Amino acid sequence: MSLPSLAAPTVLISEVGPRDGLQSVTAVMPTAAKIAWIDALHAAGVREIEVGSFVPAARLPQMADVAEVVCHAVTRPGWTVMALVPNLRGAEAALAAGVHKLTLPLSASEAHSQANVRRSRAQMLDELRAIARLRDRVAPGVALEVGMSTAFGCTLQGPVAEDEVVRLAAAAVEAGADEVGLSDTTGMADPAQVRRRFRQVHAAIGRHLGSAHLHNTRGLGLANVLAALDAGVRTFDSSQGGLGGCPYAPGASGNVVTEDLVFMLEAMGLDTGIDLARLMAARAVLRAGLPDEPLHGMTPEAGLPPGFVYADGRRPTPPQEAA
Amino acid sequence: MSLPSLAAPTVLISEVGPRDGLQSVTAVMPTAAKIAWIDALHAAGVREIEVGSFVPAARLPQMADVAEVVCHAVTRPGWTVMALVPNLRGAEAALAAGVHKLTLPLSASEAHSQANVRRSRAQMLDELRAIARLRDRVAPGVALEVGMSTAFGCTLQGPVAEDEVVRLAAAAVEAGADEVGLSDTTGMADPAQVRRRFRQVHAAIGRHLGSAHLHNTRGLGLANVLAALDAGVRTFDSSQGGLGGCPYAPGASGNVVTEDLVFMLEAMGLDTGIDLARLMAARAVLRAGLPDEPLHGMTPEAGLPPGFVYADGRRPTPPQEAA
Repeated sequence: MSLPSLAAPTVLISEVGPRDGLQSVTAVMPTAAKIAWIDALHAAGVREIEVGSFVPAARLPQMADVAEVVCHAVTRPGWTVMALVPNLRGAEAALAAGVHKLTLPLSASEAHSQANVRRSRAQMLDELRAIARLRDRVAPGVALEVGMSTAFGCTLQGPVAEDEVVRLAAAAVEAGADEVGLSDTTGMADPAQVRRRFRQVHAAIGRHLGSAHLHNTRGLGLANVLAALDAGVRTFDSSQGGLGGCPYAPGASGNVVTEDLVFMLEAMGLDTGIDLARLMAARAVLRAGLPDEPLHGMTPEAGLPPGFVYADGRRPTPPQEAA
Repeated sequence: MSLPSLAAPTVLISEVGPRDGLQSVTAVMPTAAKIAWIDALHAAGVREIEVGSFVPAARLPQMADVAEVVCHAVTRPGWTVMALVPNLRGAEAALAAGVHKLTLPLSASEAHSQANVRRSRAQMLDELRAIARLRDRVAPGVALEVGMSTAFGCTLQGPVAEDEVVRLAAAAVEAGADEVGLSDTTGMADPAQVRRRFRQVHAAIGRHLGSAHLHNTRGLGLANVLAALDAGVRTFDSSQGGLGGCPYAPGASGNVVTEDLVFMLEAMGLDTGIDLARLMAARAVLRAGLPDEPLHGMTPEAGLPPGFVYADGRRPTPPQEAA
């Protein structure tokens, strides 16, 4: 998405908690609680959000209400509402619900592709072509992203070759993707690898480079974000409270924590547009809607350091005004 | 210290848990338990270790046995045994016990200097001169490090100016320090600031640049390590299980976790000389000696990813052989 022109350099945080987070926990969050959380994230200044997956409810009951959630989220102004679609049927439903952006998973690892979407990578590229044609016909303003799963290694298959990732990214753009992001689905990435792969993919697909979707499995999430930033990435997926993982990749756990990510980027002078006190208020709404799930993140415990100033020069909102 | 020449680029991890970690917890670890832990860290491949502080036992009872601990640690071959000394008297005792390296805290913040050592920064530079003279006279082979506390901000004083940090680092070298490291005592550093400050200090003091001592207060520890690495730092302080903080800096908490740091650096192709399975065995020894203290770290939970190879080409040691 295009960002408003501001004095400080801007980065886009794409909040994936309502999709990646909620599909990874066993509890099913009631629709009203999801909507309350999504509204609180909007109030915090989130400008892109992945609100759910258009998958059969029998497979992921947590996502059964996705159309209703999308219909609500698009009524809030000034943000991009995304949904994950695993196939053409999902894309049809997502477009009917009114999403602004579709994201299709494409695994770099053949084994993960079969486990995640029960299709080969080649079949997923065919699906992408079909979705791009549909989008062009019925909703040309809707953006189409490919999120490349297991782009840094796969717990099922093992290492994933870098030229395979680059080749698939180029093939996805060729097949109609507007953006291709790379996902560390299994938490195997290290900063040197993240920097190399994003640079290579950036060199191959240029302005089509999408988001970095990084996990915190071994504590390297924010270091990997920094490496991706160095490689030119300007969109970062993260999840409030670090909720997330992948139900079809053994050993995958926790996304980068939005709260810590916002703190890091703003402290570095990179404007996210997000207010941390209001993000803490959203965390309280999440906790109320999902009381049994542990939430991650160090910044919520530590609070902001004395003298903290946002990248755009604002001082922190006092917590009592943010709730 | 000089490192052996190996094929992979090397970094030095300076384990500070027995000093920084144990002085920050309320329990007093028995001497035998400390020694068992230190031996396990040696067996894991740790090559520099800060084993205690030569401070009055009335002030830090956790450190009352420091001389005995040093006497044991120096019997292990092939590593550098350090101790923190707050003044000349501490340095005399540390040298008498046989340490290989002294580290003196020098606060960038005047308020923290008073709270931490009850002396001004100027008085600490005088103390440093006296310690350097003593060292030259009685133990010229012993290295003298200055660890600059609150180099990225202070919870007592607020922001700390960059040119103040550079000026103090140069003054410490002038006063006799072999190395000057920068410490994020209060967990306020961000990667952009870490990169800038280490570059500035590196430009000012060159080969005297010492370690990066970074905390994980807001989850940025490893991202800050990556930034310091980019700025030319090759020695990193960390603490097993993330134990640590600063008893005299409100809000300070947890050091960078050695387990996660070793995983990150080795995955990046940087040789630490440390075996992760044996480091997990040391963690078990620590846990047995300090049963009520929560230990941090994600890698211990997640384990090593499939196909992991150390920077020097070794495959992981199976856990049963490492214990």
